[in-house]
Amino acid sequence: MSLYPSLEDMKTDQMIQAQINTATRVSANSSSAEGGYPTLLPFASSHQPTSPSAPYPVDSRRIEQNELHMYPALVDLHEYMGLNLSSAELALVASPNNTVANLSSQSLVSVSPGSANMVAPLSGESVGLKRAAVTHGLRQLTLCKDKNGKVGLRVRTLNKGVFVVLVNVGSPAALAGLRFGDQILQINDENVAGYSMEKVHDIIRKSPVNGINIVVRDRPFERTITLHKDSNGHTGFAFKDGKITHIVKDSSAARNGLLIEHHLLEVNGQNVVGLNDKAIRQIIEENERVITLTIMPSMIFDHMVKSMASGMLKKLMDHSIPDF
Amino acid sequence: MSLYPSLEDMKTDQMIQAQINTATRVSANSSSAEGGYPTLLPFASSHQPTSPSAPYPVDSRRIEQNELHMYPALVDLHEYMGLNLSSAELALVASPNNTVANLSSQSLVSVSPGSANMVAPLSGESVGLKRAAVTHGLRQLTLCKDKNGKVGLRVRTLNKGVFVVLVNVGSPAALAGLRFGDQILQINDENVAGYSMEKVHDIIRKSPVNGINIVVRDRPFERTITLHKDSNGHTGFAFKDGKITHIVKDSSAARNGLLIEHHLLEVNGQNVVGLNDKAIRQIIEENERVITLTIMPSMIFDHMVKSMASGMLKKLMDHSIPDF
Repeated sequence: MSLYPSLEDMKTDQMIQAQINTATRVSANSSSAEGGYPTLLPFASSHQPTSPSAPYPVDSRRIEQNELHMYPALVDLHEYMGLNLSSAELALVASPNNTVANLSSQSLVSVSPGSANMVAPLSGESVGLKRAAVTHGLRQLTLCKDKNGKVGLRVRTLNKGVFVVLVNVGSPAALAGLRFGDQILQINDENVAGYSMEKVHDIIRKSPVNGINIVVRDRPFERTITLHKDSNGHTGFAFKDGKITHIVKDSSAARNGLLIEHHLLEVNGQNVVGLNDKAIRQIIEENERVITLTIMPSMIFDHMVKSMASGMLKKLMDHSIPDF
Repeated sequence: MSLYPSLEDMKTDQMIQAQINTATRVSANSSSAEGGYPTLLPFASSHQPTSPSAPYPVDSRRIEQNELHMYPALVDLHEYMGLNLSSAELALVASPNNTVANLSSQSLVSVSPGSANMVAPLSGESVGLKRAAVTHGLRQLTLCKDKNGKVGLRVRTLNKGVFVVLVNVGSPAALAGLRFGDQILQINDENVAGYSMEKVHDIIRKSPVNGINIVVRDRPFERTITLHKDSNGHTGFAFKDGKITHIVKDSSAARNGLLIEHHLLEVNGQNVVGLNDKAIRQIIEENERVITLTIMPSMIFDHMVKSMASGMLKKLMDHSIPDF
């Protein structure tokens, strides 16, 4: 049960695996025919074991052509599944022998040739996918106050949990890598579960200037979804005020199961909470072919930002592209 | 930024790392004192480079004692953070040199000595943690109908997505590993985004007996949270009708950020949807010291199971322990 971030990755991986298997089988047959080892195909060994006109061509160019015809979807590669594949990606998909070596340094999981564990052959190259990874795990960080005695952080409570809803641009909280939606578990070894917003703000205010120790759980209400632009640059969804409202039939958004009634929080790991739709659209357009969206059910988002002025989010929120 | 499933794992890992660092530093000093290499501490090299009564003891028993006093939390190891640690786990926490070797075969990420990447030193042994992993990724599976022409599957729609809400015990769907909350993306290469429940049931009904190809996204609305039982066997939360209602202050549930208004769907990967509270409680009690819960916001759960008779979930749902 391997993990694919997108349907395009899964289908491409399946094609590549099928090609590798075919190539391996063909070359195994050809070498056995040449070296005299027993072959897997009885008629090849019994009838023409050393003949150059064996039923299976051994010329590599002819093998490749054969494979292209064995997998009809590969014939029109430039438009595979509506994707606008670059020539580099085409080379990945088309040549079974170079594929794995090319990918191993870039994809999420390094593979050995012929391994069945290759993951994300298309999206694996995307730095956005890595930046956007939501682990739901714990991490510890240390905040120091800035010259005004602030850490640049606001929280809201939900279901007895304490959540980060504002990370000021350029603030200690932003530098420490806190994100919208992070759940604060401990401040200076004090469990904050069940605390009110005011109490948490108060603890932070009363903390010493240096060394506020915070343990957070990585964005528990959020998940990512990876989409691939089609040849027109579209991924197939519409949104209004940051909320996803429509999914285009048979688009990458539909194939990958993007849902309406969800809010866009990040695009390739870059926070877009508080940005207007035009600015979000521009970030999506400017980004590369693979887009990883971080989303949250709108019911939960609305609860988190209610009673916060949208101007505050727009003006103060850190929207920088995270380091990786 | 390493990944810890629970706060107990993070704190234990930090202790172990600190101990390894101390042990390495001490033994580096002791060997330099014996071998005459320049030491990191100026007074040691200038004053007593070869003296057995150097300020840093080299006897290993004394080093261990020293470390125990340097880390006060370690003094009362049996009750560390309220955990009831077994002697095997104690050995892990207490002896800095054996630790990494013991863990590497069991923990989620294998480590080399001194590596800063050790993850989940306590929970890593738990098979429940592995069984319960929610990836949010895609997988493909093939269903065949049973002798009655059924696959044993019911779906509901939410936000234009199609979700599995019933997996009949012993059915082809259960054998294929479908789970409550899986999002169905494609059936026989047809995108089902936006389809109604009736239409999806109809497609499955009209499919041939063999080879219904399904692509699913792994439980997008769900996440896991790992808790550790204290010395009384408690993890620190109460639930009613499968919904979490209370979190006990300073319990493992509070430390790890478990939230109320969430439904319990799985315990150590075993589905509990439709079971009564007594049966769920029994599963939690019977399980080992580490409990991984799979949860979903109750708002979403209620939508998914509404208009389904609870008796149906209780009688038909597959509650078996998944293979790993």
